[in-house]
Amino acid sequence: METAMRSPSLTSFFSAIPDFESGRDTPRAFLERCLAAIAEFEPEVGAFVHLEIENAKAAADRSTERWRRGKTISQVDGMPVAIKDIIETSDMPTQMGSPLYTGWRSGRDGASVAAVREAGAIVLGKTTTTELATRHPFHTTRNPWDLRRTPGGSSSGSAAAVACGMVPAALGTQGLSSIVRPASYCGCVGFKPSLGAINRGGSLDTVAHSVHGALGASLSDVWIVLREIADRAGGDPGFAGLIGPSRPPLARKPERLALIETEGWRDAAPEAKSAFTEAVERIGAAGVAIRRAADCGPVAKVESAISNAMAMVTAINAWDMRWPLNSYRNRDAGKMSKALLAQLAIAEAMTLEDYRTRLAERAQMRAVYANLADECDAALTLAATSAAPEGLGSTGNGIFGVPGSLLGVPAVSLPLLRAEQLPLGLQVVGFAQCDASLFATAAWLMEQLRDFCAREGGRQA
Amino acid sequence: METAMRSPSLTSFFSAIPDFESGRDTPRAFLERCLAAIAEFEPEVGAFVHLEIENAKAAADRSTERWRRGKTISQVDGMPVAIKDIIETSDMPTQMGSPLYTGWRSGRDGASVAAVREAGAIVLGKTTTTELATRHPFHTTRNPWDLRRTPGGSSSGSAAAVACGMVPAALGTQGLSSIVRPASYCGCVGFKPSLGAINRGGSLDTVAHSVHGALGASLSDVWIVLREIADRAGGDPGFAGLIGPSRPPLARKPERLALIETEGWRDAAPEAKSAFTEAVERIGAAGVAIRRAADCGPVAKVESAISNAMAMVTAINAWDMRWPLNSYRNRDAGKMSKALLAQLAIAEAMTLEDYRTRLAERAQMRAVYANLADECDAALTLAATSAAPEGLGSTGNGIFGVPGSLLGVPAVSLPLLRAEQLPLGLQVVGFAQCDASLFATAAWLMEQLRDFCAREGGRQA
Repeated sequence: METAMRSPSLTSFFSAIPDFESGRDTPRAFLERCLAAIAEFEPEVGAFVHLEIENAKAAADRSTERWRRGKTISQVDGMPVAIKDIIETSDMPTQMGSPLYTGWRSGRDGASVAAVREAGAIVLGKTTTTELATRHPFHTTRNPWDLRRTPGGSSSGSAAAVACGMVPAALGTQGLSSIVRPASYCGCVGFKPSLGAINRGGSLDTVAHSVHGALGASLSDVWIVLREIADRAGGDPGFAGLIGPSRPPLARKPERLALIETEGWRDAAPEAKSAFTEAVERIGAAGVAIRRAADCGPVAKVESAISNAMAMVTAINAWDMRWPLNSYRNRDAGKMSKALLAQLAIAEAMTLEDYRTRLAERAQMRAVYANLADECDAALTLAATSAAPEGLGSTGNGIFGVPGSLLGVPAVSLPLLRAEQLPLGLQVVGFAQCDASLFATAAWLMEQLRDFCAREGGRQA
Repeated sequence: METAMRSPSLTSFFSAIPDFESGRDTPRAFLERCLAAIAEFEPEVGAFVHLEIENAKAAADRSTERWRRGKTISQVDGMPVAIKDIIETSDMPTQMGSPLYTGWRSGRDGASVAAVREAGAIVLGKTTTTELATRHPFHTTRNPWDLRRTPGGSSSGSAAAVACGMVPAALGTQGLSSIVRPASYCGCVGFKPSLGAINRGGSLDTVAHSVHGALGASLSDVWIVLREIADRAGGDPGFAGLIGPSRPPLARKPERLALIETEGWRDAAPEAKSAFTEAVERIGAAGVAIRRAADCGPVAKVESAISNAMAMVTAINAWDMRWPLNSYRNRDAGKMSKALLAQLAIAEAMTLEDYRTRLAERAQMRAVYANLADECDAALTLAATSAAPEGLGSTGNGIFGVPGSLLGVPAVSLPLLRAEQLPLGLQVVGFAQCDASLFATAAWLMEQLRDFCAREGGRQA
């Protein structure tokens, strides 16, 4: 196995806060550690399309001074953050992973970028993504655990950068599987919040159920960065924004968890299935009741309702991207991949009535899933079908992200499983607007399974 | 009164269709009539910021050939359409009515522009708007009925262009009163559809309850252009899109109509009130039951629920525009009006919790209004407080547009009233997703009041 110089490791900003407060550490020193990781890993990993290092150092110095004076702006004051390159930045190009946008600068910050800066965080650079955050990877980003493998997509660079400690958190987006899959492949936490939780203004993200989220070194890192953004940018217009406390929710043992195989199970590698099954057994052994389709009607109904989710998401996402793809195609088809043109063709073969039918089916699916809240605290499933697959021409199978995306519910990928001696995510799926409750369950799972995972060769986070 | 050379008059494309079919008229000849109106009125009115006349002529020739061969693409094949300049166009700049966007070209069509072109219509040019479609008019557009008066805003140029027959229809947007007010002042039809009915992709329109609509020479012109757009672009992602038949709904006499004064009544000029009151009496005399707050509990509840709508829309719109205004301010405050900076200050004094409170109030308001559907077919109110006011430094009082905007329901302004010997709109407000039913009522009102209005010195459409 070809690997980077040393094993990648995560760097938590949240964990460093006590040392910032005591003066033993500073945001500037923290940034320097991130820059050291970038110097070490970036030449091989290729997580960034753009870096603004000098500006970041100056911002870190200003933050250091605020910590010294006890006048910090927020919990993320001084946190180095990377931005998926479909979100606009006033001081850097936004190139959308596509030749259509080579060198493009919007001259403004996207809503989440403006908010994270307002909170005192440091926008360190832009991370690679697939073509317009869809399938085709024009950029070659490598998985830091094995350079022959994909980091996943479409939040490719965000996951890779977090995985090797280049940043403690990075913004990503998910309309299919674009946060939980790369988080799974790269061994970091990935959080896709409830529908509408984070303002998507100033990003190329036209899929209605898509949402902005974060990849991070820990649950606490992703929670604080998204909470601080939501306070300053809100959610998507008309939405309540991410709901929950300012501080990361504390671990809370769930009473009951549902096991949902989803249609991804048929694609899952045997090793991934057994890693998941062992983890679920461990959770059951800790005293959590596991609800399965075989013995719980509402779980069976959910499995049935989401059994055709991939076909549904394919149609809905295609229609939701009919524009702008039609306008790009009319102008510049040569700068679009065959996969993207094929997606547009799906949309152009659909009618508005077809789309309405899909929306009605999705609403029905959501209603069935909502009933599951009476049966359990959250649902468990895999975050990906396997460890990161070899090859850089594809970002892997996204099927396990689909139900959470369509349902509009919060989901986290936790770096608690292993397959092929590589990271694999345990996905925990919550209920709409109950992101904080999901975090409390996820935090308990991290505590509970960390030892198990370490013993099995897993990683800590 | 200072006026243009001749009295402005509307030009319907829908009415010309039989002549296109018979060969007595052609889209090219229709376009030439539009261009003649532009030559006559545009130097004084200033409705356009950009025109693409040669491209339009070539497109009209292609459409003429399609009509000749009986191979038209849609009902709007060959229709010259103007586009409010906050919607992107691949072949023209999009300047947002703001010095922040002087000369800016996105290089793509907005969703509605791509769709209208796909339907065979002709994008003739971009029409003036206020600063980022808010309050301040950087462009001087004059009301074609009296050049000393405002055409209204923010769809200023769209209304003015339609009013003098430069185009049969123009796209507009409304997040407060930006379609019904200019339609009222300029004496054309203005249609603000149900929330989400038309895909807003590629427009600067971050207010959640804002919607794309049209100003046109007749109800049929606005219906066909929006229906054809919806079929090709859908509604906003996740929405069903404009619902109703392809052909314009036929006139249908309503049984009962509610009279809602709204908080606008206190601002309305006596002459506007009496014009409205006379029209309502006429409608009652034709056998329609008029439901009023004084004698109908649900109407009284609606009046109460919307009694503070202006304060609510001010807060919600401010928050929904916090971004991108904060990013523009950080970069280029000198290119923003004081009014816009003041709006940003309102947003920055709000918390996410304040916004959630407003959303909850809005949801409650919508629920109260929805109950009105049991009592009546639609609601009647004024479209503006008066005829277009004198002066070009303000686009007038938008208070009468606010309830329809906040409620997310369809509304039309019909050019059926007069005040100060100038146009004034009768506003008909419908129920969510029942746009076609509203049109049937509105068409009956046009038939019924046209004679009355002509006798009173009003205009026909």
